[in-house]
Order: sequence, then C-alpha cells, then structure tokens
Amino acid sequence: MINAQAPRLLRALAGETLERPPVWFMRQAGRSLPEYRELRARAGDFISLAMNPEMAAEVTLQPVRRFPFDAAIIFADILLIPRALGQELWFEPGEGPRLGPLPPIRALADEVAASTERLSPVGETVARVRAELEPERALIGFAGGPWTVATYMIEGRGSQREAARAYAYVHRDELDALLDVLVEATARYLVLQARSGAQALQIFESWAENLAEDVFERVVIRPHTAIIEKVRAAGVTAPFIGFPRGAGALVEIYAEAAPVDCVGLDTQAPAALGRRLQAQGKTIQGALDNLLLRAGGPALDARVAQLLQQWGGGPYVFNLGHGVLPDTPIEHIGRVVAQVTGKPAKAAA
Amino acid sequence: MINAQAPRLLRALAGETLERPPVWFMRQAGRSLPEYRELRARAGDFISLAMNPEMAAEVTLQPVRRFPFDAAIIFADILLIPRALGQELWFEPGEGPRLGPLPPIRALADEVAASTERLSPVGETVARVRAELEPERALIGFAGGPWTVATYMIEGRGSQREAARAYAYVHRDELDALLDVLVEATARYLVLQARSGAQALQIFESWAENLAEDVFERVVIRPHTAIIEKVRAAGVTAPFIGFPRGAGALVEIYAEAAPVDCVGLDTQAPAALGRRLQAQGKTIQGALDNLLLRAGGPALDARVAQLLQQWGGGPYVFNLGHGVLPDTPIEHIGRVVAQVTGKPAKAAA
Repeated sequence: MINAQAPRLLRALAGETLERPPVWFMRQAGRSLPEYRELRARAGDFISLAMNPEMAAEVTLQPVRRFPFDAAIIFADILLIPRALGQELWFEPGEGPRLGPLPPIRALADEVAASTERLSPVGETVARVRAELEPERALIGFAGGPWTVATYMIEGRGSQREAARAYAYVHRDELDALLDVLVEATARYLVLQARSGAQALQIFESWAENLAEDVFERVVIRPHTAIIEKVRAAGVTAPFIGFPRGAGALVEIYAEAAPVDCVGLDTQAPAALGRRLQAQGKTIQGALDNLLLRAGGPALDARVAQLLQQWGGGPYVFNLGHGVLPDTPIEHIGRVVAQVTGKPAKAAA
Repeated sequence: MINAQAPRLLRALAGETLERPPVWFMRQAGRSLPEYRELRARAGDFISLAMNPEMAAEVTLQPVRRFPFDAAIIFADILLIPRALGQELWFEPGEGPRLGPLPPIRALADEVAASTERLSPVGETVARVRAELEPERALIGFAGGPWTVATYMIEGRGSQREAARAYAYVHRDELDALLDVLVEATARYLVLQARSGAQALQIFESWAENLAEDVFERVVIRPHTAIIEKVRAAGVTAPFIGFPRGAGALVEIYAEAAPVDCVGLDTQAPAALGRRLQAQGKTIQGALDNLLLRAGGPALDARVAQLLQQWGGGPYVFNLGHGVLPDTPIEHIGRVVAQVTGKPAKAAA
C-alpha cells in the first residue's frame, strides 16, 4: 500500500478508494486558457513550444496555478516521437498536424536510440515542472499509443483513419514492424520521463475505434503490453494509465489483458462497465463529455454529481472522456474542479 | 415458433439457431456491382433512382441475382425522410448528401402525414421486389435511426458530428421535439414498407458513437423503442433489427432496453459480447470488417470461419459490421457468401 501522504492521484492509481477522487483533465494545458494563448503567440510554432523546456514547463504549470487539479500533465505532443524518428512534422494553421512521407521502417528502426536523445528536452521539461510543483500534486508523463501514432505516420494527418485500418490488413507485416519500432521508441521515451520525475505514465491510444477484436489485440493490446514490460524491465515502477479511446466493449478485454494500473474510459463508457472494472481491481479514469463541459449549465452539475456517485465508491480518477475543447469557457472548468475537490479556483492565474 | 418453411432470415430473427446462418450484406445493392453502376449512369441523380420504383426494385434485386444472399434489402436512403418532411436534399458529386437549412420543428411536424404519402414510391418498390423475389429469400425494409437522421438535418451533411452532439446539450428541448417528429414519420414509413411486403425491418443508427450513457438512452434507446411500439400498435408483426453502430459497450444496454428482435453488431463487437446477447435470447447480426472484405485473401477466409465458429452456435445473421465499400472486388463478396452458404455465386448477373 502506498504512503498516505502520497499525492492523491498516486493513491487512486494504487487502487485506493478515496473520500473524493483526484481530478485532472486531458488537455488541461492549452488553448482553453488565456495565459496559454498569450504565451503561444510569443512562442512561434507549436513544436518550438513543446521542445522548449522553459516554455513547456510554464504551459504545464498554468492550469494547476489556476485550478486545484490534483495533477499536472507534461505539455508535449504524441507526434514528437515520429519527428524524433526522422519523419517530417509540421502544423498546418487551423487544421492540425501534417507528417511527411513515411520513411522506410528500417530507417526508422535505426533512429530509435537517437530519438530518445532528441527528446531529451521533454525530460528537462519534466524535471523543471517537478521541481516547481507542490508535493501533493502528481506529475503525469505520457506518450501516444503506437497504433494511433502509426495511423498518423501512415496517413500523414489526423482526419482520415480508414486508410490506416486498411493498412492493418493489406500491409500486415509492415504495420507490425512499424509498431515494433514505436514500442521500443515509446518505452525509452517513457523511461526518460519517469527518470526525470514523472510519477505516472499515460498511454493515449486516441484512435482505438472501429477495430475488430483480433486487430485490436494485435495493434493495441500487444504493443501496450510490450511498452509496459520494457519500462518495467528498465526499473521504472510508475503506475500506468492506458486510454484506448473508442474501444467500446473491447475496453474490458484490454483491462484484463494489458498490465495497466488504471483504464481510461471514454465518454460512452457505461456506468456498469466502470463498476465491473473497479470490482476486478482496476482503477478507472474518466469520463465526463467534453461537449457537456463546454456547454455548462445545470446539466453539467448534474452529470458531475452522477459520475461521482456512480464511480466514487471504488478506485477512481475524475477526468473527461476526451480532451478539453479549445473554446471551453474556463468558468466551466473551475466549476467542475470545485465540485469534485471542494476547492474553488483562484481568481487569476 | 415460426414455420420451418419460412425464409432462413426470419427463422434466425425468431431466435432459431440454424445449421448455417442466413447471410446478407449492408449496402449489398450499390456501387460495388458493375450492373448497378451501369443503371446508375442511366438514371441520373441518386434521388431520382431511389424514388423510381421500377429502377429501385431492379437495383434491390441485382445482388440477389448475382449472389445466394438470403435476403434483399430495399434500395433507398435514410435521408428520404427529411426530404419528405420538407428539408431540401441533394447529393454533391463525390462528397455525399447535403441538406438545406433545418426547417422549424413545427413546420416539420405539420408534414408528418404528408411525408408518408410522398414516400409511397418506396412502398411500390417493396411490392415490386416482393413479387419477384423467391419465397425462400426475405425482403428487408429499413429506415435511419432518428438520432442519425437528426444529425444530418442539424449539420446539413455527413462528415461532421460534433455539432449535433453539442446540440443535444445546448438545444435539448429542440432536439427532443425533432426526434419526436422523426419517430412518428419513421414509424409510419416502416408501417408502409411492412404493409407493402417487407418481412423484417432494420433501424440503421449509423452514428451512435461517442454518446454518454444518459444521452444514448435519450436519443437512441427511447426513440427506437417508441418507433417499434408505434409500428406494433399499427398491427405490424415483422421482426426488428436494431443497429446502433458505434455504441460500444452501450449496445448491451440497448439490447436489454429496446424491444428489438435482433441487435446489429459493428466491427468492434467482441465475440464474448455477442455470445452474452445470444444467451439472453437476442439474435445478433454482424460483424465482418468491410475493410477486410475489400482486402480479401487468406485473412478474410480465416475471419469468416472465426465468426461462424464464435457466433454460429446461437441465433445469428451473418453480415458486415458496416456497409460494403464501393471499391470492394465482387469476387470477395462471392467468396464470403459461398463460404457461409455453401453455394457459389452465379457467373454473371
């Protein structure tokens, strides 16, 4: 059992049922905050910001200065790994990420060790944030799930997914080889984050949707398991949160098969499913609709109360089912965090 | 218990476990068939084709002439209802459907009775197909789920869904009123199809994705239940297939709450979930990945065998988890149907 003085997030991830759950929000750092938008305007492009430890640490800390979140999550991007492996990455204004042509798998494989070197600024960001963050707040490191990252690498952008799903059938061996490279690079990257001070690690498998069970086992469960085993083999004991967004009923198979400490649930996870996972000893995290957070009003208050009631009786981390939308009023964020923690937001950042 | 001479599909929908399941494919009529593309080129626009009983009947029959499918499904479109209610509909070449501005709900409500009149050509199509179809093949009628149709009506197109999901929170009463109108129009439309000769009725809820449990109950389960109750109240006994695509783990709650005879499962439905539904007395339908059907090869043969093995021991209708993709080689369709039925496709249509 973990120390009773440990950050609330870590106690929940260790399987404790607390008098009130810890709370943090996916994309809590970012465009919903005016102080982020101001810094972003000064920083130039997104990648420069993510790779600048001083600025990335500042962005990571902005939401925890404003709101009584129980954790900070490092400001980075899941596509820093393909970039570090040698695939060109840029952000098209107003449209999102774009990647250049997929390099040969062998060329990517040759860059694995170097990729972790190239990502050392993220390690420095982690160390800076951990030095400044209050001890009762946990620091979360993260990486994208290999399947999700691979879909970007194959399609070159985020808006299409069908080509990548077809690739899983038509270029089966190539996909498996690409996933193997990503598993290795991701494990090293997460070890870097943990050694720099990250106390919990989340795998964001943002596009686990529409996969048949056998494909899901191959491209999601197996790579996640391999990453965690590699990180553990490096001596890192930080708990893992696995978030296979869109996995639907397959999330129960994931929870049973992948050695994660906590399963992130998305917006459509039924109450009963979460309780089944808790009964099996998994901590769960989620799953407020980010559209309801943006909409606000009495329906938001009622849904937050319902989530606390339906899952608060077991090991639970309060979160959204997806990231904060950029146009979310910050008053709504403050209201929900206050409802969960009993602590109001600070008036200004 | 249903007559042993009844079409195989109807026996399966009545809960029988057959020595081999019936098979049909969503979008079996359409662009994957050269004879369809030829007729389509002569017909002019898509709506003219769907509203022309002679041509729509021909298109409906094309796949059953070529392949030993156990059912035909009427050639129509889920957006014929909003059109019949007075919202402008057109198809943008290469992009899909577009709808004009959403009329006031009251105006739509005033058109409900007239909408069924305007859809009478679909009834005529059903009658024509039923007259020509062999008695051992069943004829399926269908309509879109009110939520899916509403998302099109709200967004004006099919590619975005977030605005409609936000609408469910921000314009709650308006959405409920729109769903009520669609429930009434859809029930009448399905009664028309059943009275014209449709022997089973499917509700295509194509976009049940990403809905929180409480929203899913409100916008999917409740409207489906209301439609089925209205159709039953009109004296129609045809079995219902409900297909909430993308519902994930919520499909189990749907199966328990909605009075459907059969639950359509999508690509990501786990084997164990299907077996649980069968054990509860529901027939299940699905769930071959349409991308694997297009890809073909030994992996396709193996997956078909796996589906037959995992679900064939209970009441089961073999189908895809989504519609046939337009660029699917017809040889792959013939191969799968032969594997399920033991009957080869005819050489030519």
